Amino acid sequence: MVPTKQKEIHLANRPKGMPTNDDFEFVEQDIPTLEENQVLLRTLYLSVDPYMRGRMQDAKSYIAPFQLHKAIVGGGIAEVVESRSEKFKQGDIVTGSLKWAEYSRMSDQKVRKIDPASAPVTTHLGILGMTGLTAYFGLLDIGKPQPGETVVVSGAAGAVGSAVGQIAKIKGTRVVGIAGSDEKIAFLKEELGFDEAVNYKKETFAEDLANAVPNGVDVYFDNVGGPVTDEVFKLLNTNARIPLCGAISSYNKEEDLGPRLQSYMIKTSALMKGFTVGNYAADFENGSKQLAAWLQEGKLKYEETIVEGFDKTPDAFLDLFKGTNIGKLLVKVADPEYAKL
Amino acid sequence: MVPTKQKEIHLANRPKGMPTNDDFEFVEQDIPTLEENQVLLRTLYLSVDPYMRGRMQDAKSYIAPFQLHKAIVGGGIAEVVESRSEKFKQGDIVTGSLKWAEYSRMSDQKVRKIDPASAPVTTHLGILGMTGLTAYFGLLDIGKPQPGETVVVSGAAGAVGSAVGQIAKIKGTRVVGIAGSDEKIAFLKEELGFDEAVNYKKETFAEDLANAVPNGVDVYFDNVGGPVTDEVFKLLNTNARIPLCGAISSYNKEEDLGPRLQSYMIKTSALMKGFTVGNYAADFENGSKQLAAWLQEGKLKYEETIVEGFDKTPDAFLDLFKGTNIGKLLVKVADPEYAKL
Repeated sequence: MVPTKQKEIHLANRPKGMPTNDDFEFVEQDIPTLEENQVLLRTLYLSVDPYMRGRMQDAKSYIAPFQLHKAIVGGGIAEVVESRSEKFKQGDIVTGSLKWAEYSRMSDQKVRKIDPASAPVTTHLGILGMTGLTAYFGLLDIGKPQPGETVVVSGAAGAVGSAVGQIAKIKGTRVVGIAGSDEKIAFLKEELGFDEAVNYKKETFAEDLANAVPNGVDVYFDNVGGPVTDEVFKLLNTNARIPLCGAISSYNKEEDLGPRLQSYMIKTSALMKGFTVGNYAADFENGSKQLAAWLQEGKLKYEETIVEGFDKTPDAFLDLFKGTNIGKLLVKVADPEYAKL
Repeated sequence: MVPTKQKEIHLANRPKGMPTNDDFEFVEQDIPTLEENQVLLRTLYLSVDPYMRGRMQDAKSYIAPFQLHKAIVGGGIAEVVESRSEKFKQGDIVTGSLKWAEYSRMSDQKVRKIDPASAPVTTHLGILGMTGLTAYFGLLDIGKPQPGETVVVSGAAGAVGSAVGQIAKIKGTRVVGIAGSDEKIAFLKEELGFDEAVNYKKETFAEDLANAVPNGVDVYFDNVGGPVTDEVFKLLNTNARIPLCGAISSYNKEEDLGPRLQSYMIKTSALMKGFTVGNYAADFENGSKQLAAWLQEGKLKYEETIVEGFDKTPDAFLDLFKGTNIGKLLVKVADPEYAKL
C-alpha cells in the first residue's frame, strides 16, 4: 500500500570543495496523485555517480545544474505501484532519471521497462546501463584500441574503469589499470584479468607505471585527471588516443593547477577528446546488446557496492570521492512490493 | 667563385630556459668536395621557426634533437653552385633542410627544385612551404571549420597563424586572432581581413576575447598555449575542435604550471589533437597546389620579416620569442651568384 507521505533529498547548498552532509536536506512531501499517462514509482535502487558533482555547481555544462531546494535527480530503478498509462502495469520494473525520493510520479515517456529475468536489475545502472555504455563508446569510438596495443585506464577499479579494461582485453590489447589500494590492484589482476595494475598512492608510482608499459601507451582512458594523468602523459606513444571521461581528482577543488600537457600532445600527435555518454544516444541499443552478450558469455564481469537505506544516499555519494568503493556504487532504497527480483 | 672556407653555426649548449647567443657557436670549416649525385649549395635564405627550440633539448620527440657541436639544420633556400647530379645544374634554386652554413654539400635526393618565376622564392619557406602547409592541414583536417562557425587563432600575426586565419576566412567562418601588439592587431584586421583581433597583453584581454566571440568558439588553432589558451578554453562551444600546433609560451620554461583544462573538454565534448606537418607528407602536393592557387587569386596574403646577414641568424631565432615579428621570419644569407631572382 502506498503511504501518503514520503521523503526526498534536496540540494541545500552548492558545495564549495568537497561536499558534506550539510549540502543535502531531507524533505517530507505528499505523495502526488497521478494524471493521465503517468505512473507512480517506488524507488528500489539509486545510482550515485561522480558526474553528479558537476551538476551541483551553477555552471554551464552538457547537463543543466541541479536546482537549489529541489530534489536531486540521477539514475534509478523503480517498481510501478500505480499506473494511469497503457504502457505500464503495477509490478513492472523500470529505469530512468529518478528523483532522490522514495516515490515519484513520472510521465510514461520518461522511463523504460526492464526485464528482471534476463539480468539482475542493478546491472541496468551499471554494466548494462550508462556506466557500461560510457566505457563502451568512449573506448571504442575515441580510443580505437588495436590488437597488441597498450591501453591504460585510470580509476580502473571504478564502475566505468573496470568495464573499460575488460572491453580492451576483449579487443586484444595489453591492459594496465591504475587504482588506489592493494585490494583494488588484486581485484583488477585476479578477478578482471588486467595484465598489470599499478597503485598510484605508492611512492614508486611513476616507476611502476613506466615498468608496466614497456611499449608505451597507445590509449589512455582517463577518469581521474590530476597527477596520475601527468605521469601517463610522459609515456604516450605517437598517435596516442585519450578518451576523456572524467576528472574526479579535480571535482572538489576550487583551483587545480598542474603542468601544462599540450607539449606532450604536440610531440606525439596525440588526440584527446572529452565525451559524455549522451553523445552516443543514437547507438545505445546496439551498445547495450553487445554488452549484454559479453556479460552472458562470461567475458564481462562487474562488481557492485550496495549501500542499504534511502537515508544513506548522501553518504554513498560522498563515498565516491574517498576512493574506497570497488565497482558500481548503488543505494538500495526498498524491496519491490509487487514484483519478484 | 666558391671560396675554400665557410662558416657554420653549431649548437654550443642545450639551452636552459630562454636561449642566448652563447648557445650558438660560429665554426669555420673547409668547403667540402662533391661526390657522385651530390650538389654544392650556396645558402640564400634560412628559416627560423619556433619548433627548432624543441630540437635543442635532448628529449624524445617527433624529430631527433640537434647534436651538440654540430650544425643546426632547418628550412632553407639555396642556389646550386656546383653539381655532380644529373638532376640539378649550376644556377638552379632549391629548397630543403639545410645546415645553418654558408655552403653545404647535399645529396640530390634531399633537395627539391623550385621555380623562381612562379612566386618569390621565400614563399617556399612560408606560405607555400612548411608554414602554409602546417596552417592548411591543421586547420582543415583537425579543425574542420564549417561556414558560420567561429575560429580563434593564437599567435595570429605569426607565419602559421596569419595563414590559418585567412584560410578560415576562405572557408566562410568568423575569424578572431589573438596577438600581442596594437600593430599586429591592425595588421590582422586591416591587411588580412580578420573579423576581430584581440591583444592578449591588455588587462582587459579576457573580456575583449569574450566580446569578440559572442557565439563562442568552435575551432581554436593553438600556437601558443599558456594563459592565452586558458581564456579561450572558457569559451569553447560543444564539439569544439582544437588543432594543437605549438606552445611557444612554454618552450623556454623549465616548469610551466597552469589550470588543468580537461574539465572544459569534458563539458563540451571538445577534441584536441597535437600534430606536426610531417603527418601530412603524403598530401603535401595537393596542399601546396591549393595554397598556390589561393595566393594567385589574391585570397592569401603573407608578410615576411627578413633579417640580413648569416651572422644574424641566432639573433633572428631569438627574436621569435620576443613576439616582435610579423609574419614569416627569415634570414637573408646571400644573393645568388648564377641565378636571377
